[in-house]
Amino acid sequence: MKISIDKNVLSDGLVKVQNAVSNRPAIPVLNNILITAKDNSLTITGNDMNISITTTIDCNVETEGTTTLPARKFSQIIKQLPSDVVTISTDDKNISSISCQKSFFKISGLSAVDYPVLEGDGEYRQYTTSSNEFRKALSKIDYASSADETRRVLNGILLSIRGNTVTAVATDGRRLALIESHIDDNRDLDGDVILTSQSVNELQKLLSSGDSVDVSLGANRARFEVGDTILTAKLIEGNYPNFNQVVPTEFGNHVNIKRSLLADSINRVSVILDNSSSPIKMSLEQGKAVIQSTSNADESSEPIDVDYSGQPVVIALNPSFIHDTLKRLECEAITLKFTDNVSPICLLGDEGFKYIIMPMRG
Amino acid sequence: MKISIDKNVLSDGLVKVQNAVSNRPAIPVLNNILITAKDNSLTITGNDMNISITTTIDCNVETEGTTTLPARKFSQIIKQLPSDVVTISTDDKNISSISCQKSFFKISGLSAVDYPVLEGDGEYRQYTTSSNEFRKALSKIDYASSADETRRVLNGILLSIRGNTVTAVATDGRRLALIESHIDDNRDLDGDVILTSQSVNELQKLLSSGDSVDVSLGANRARFEVGDTILTAKLIEGNYPNFNQVVPTEFGNHVNIKRSLLADSINRVSVILDNSSSPIKMSLEQGKAVIQSTSNADESSEPIDVDYSGQPVVIALNPSFIHDTLKRLECEAITLKFTDNVSPICLLGDEGFKYIIMPMRG
Repeated sequence: MKISIDKNVLSDGLVKVQNAVSNRPAIPVLNNILITAKDNSLTITGNDMNISITTTIDCNVETEGTTTLPARKFSQIIKQLPSDVVTISTDDKNISSISCQKSFFKISGLSAVDYPVLEGDGEYRQYTTSSNEFRKALSKIDYASSADETRRVLNGILLSIRGNTVTAVATDGRRLALIESHIDDNRDLDGDVILTSQSVNELQKLLSSGDSVDVSLGANRARFEVGDTILTAKLIEGNYPNFNQVVPTEFGNHVNIKRSLLADSINRVSVILDNSSSPIKMSLEQGKAVIQSTSNADESSEPIDVDYSGQPVVIALNPSFIHDTLKRLECEAITLKFTDNVSPICLLGDEGFKYIIMPMRG
Repeated sequence: MKISIDKNVLSDGLVKVQNAVSNRPAIPVLNNILITAKDNSLTITGNDMNISITTTIDCNVETEGTTTLPARKFSQIIKQLPSDVVTISTDDKNISSISCQKSFFKISGLSAVDYPVLEGDGEYRQYTTSSNEFRKALSKIDYASSADETRRVLNGILLSIRGNTVTAVATDGRRLALIESHIDDNRDLDGDVILTSQSVNELQKLLSSGDSVDVSLGANRARFEVGDTILTAKLIEGNYPNFNQVVPTEFGNHVNIKRSLLADSINRVSVILDNSSSPIKMSLEQGKAVIQSTSNADESSEPIDVDYSGQPVVIALNPSFIHDTLKRLECEAITLKFTDNVSPICLLGDEGFKYIIMPMRG
């Protein structure tokens, strides 16, 4: 293989695929990046057998070929080079010589033959949607997934399609965040997949790099294509809990609160809490909410104006649960719907968004 | 005690003293910040019994008094408040009520009577110098001190005064960095002190905050005053090695190299090294230096133009030792003076600066 390529183009490509390379790969070749030169383009792949990221970039191919190079070392070399043309030539022992201006490197790779591929699984349901909308939707719910490894399905994010509606859901059993969006496609795409949180993290980065994304959902794999970059992800097997059962439909009370006002108040009032699982209290009465907390002898409180007109009630809430959501939303005001201080509470805000939390014991 | 004070003024003051509060204080009250309201100013102190930082800020004192408040909690509360006047009133049980606009906090402190003071030791040698010059001098040598706790004196930075010359020295036994600067004072200030690296870190932050610094060096304490802020630091006891013996005066050869060129080359060439203690080699011949390294089967090299006119020689160097220095200096070009590839090498650059390193075994 012999190629010449712009340093910055190569460097940007390596940044894209690098996060798919594991720090502790199952087999040595997965420590490496796969590069393939063909038809005046270079395809670069990083893969940890859970996700695989491939990007294709322009390059001048003198001799076609393929090899693998140690991901970290290769990326660092390219990053340190001056902004100029980089020449890479690889011999039949997978030793690559890299030159740029006066700099010269010789690094050993491994044969591309041994590099495993995270194959797709054939049957895909496919649609195209806005990258930006999809990225924002994921960011509004992803924090609510569980870190508890004993319930694997809850570690992931559900993408559930019914008709033209895609619902993304995350829950850790104590709270549930969902967001509905609509796709412009009349084929039958109905079905559920559970994405790993790793793939959702990488997907959000990928979605920042283009205008639209081609989504392909299979039985064991999901595939996302943005521009010249493809993310393939293993899905989590299992059945996601029926989220519709968790979302109450009837509430006796509601209150509208300015989002930034509530976020700032909760931030301030919760400073005195020594323990992140301690509650703050929201005391609602006619036209007023008081956010307050106590911790040993310390106390804090702040009244905020709201449009509440129901009976006085005191609701205990996990401040970080509320804060996680408030900082991701974009709406001016949120609505809290509730029945009493022991039943599930629903926070509404951005279009299609619902957040269900259980009150804490006060 | 009852005061009202501008939120931003108080917040800035707390940032200054906070770093002197230990995360694991020896006694509970050292978890707190000491605040004293008197004569329309507020004095705030953080102290871990190794260093103490005190700053004085303007405030409106309604009732004079003193108390201590938990450092982290108090700072976070103030930081979260809106930019407006903050009122603090403290009762005789050291419970402080803090209000700002609609926010209200009540937090428990401890009696100021129990707060220990890091006293000075009476006799000081004093001089005044430029904050900026002093800060830069420290930053050019501080990385060379030792982290090995079995040789306490080498963990610190020596400040040695002889006549009008202040020499700051750091060494870990394998390299030695020193910088000389001049003070405009004709009193007899001769003497040596060893500052802890913690105090040098904090001193550098303090020096950024004003134009000149009043330096006071005693037998067991150093004291640095910049504007309204005073840093008092315990000194390291013991005798610092005689650095003059370490600095060779005669060298057979020298080479001048552009600083940024050498730094970039070393950065690039050392990327392939798997181990931070592996050497790079500098091969010198007429008019040329080649920076190179090898690691297992990998290799890298880069020639740079230099004005060398001596015999060919290959010198093995610790790349991070050279890099640490090159990135802190400000000069256009550095000079390496050396005799051969086994004797100490001297790197010269900024005015008054000397860096002595031992070559590695190639």
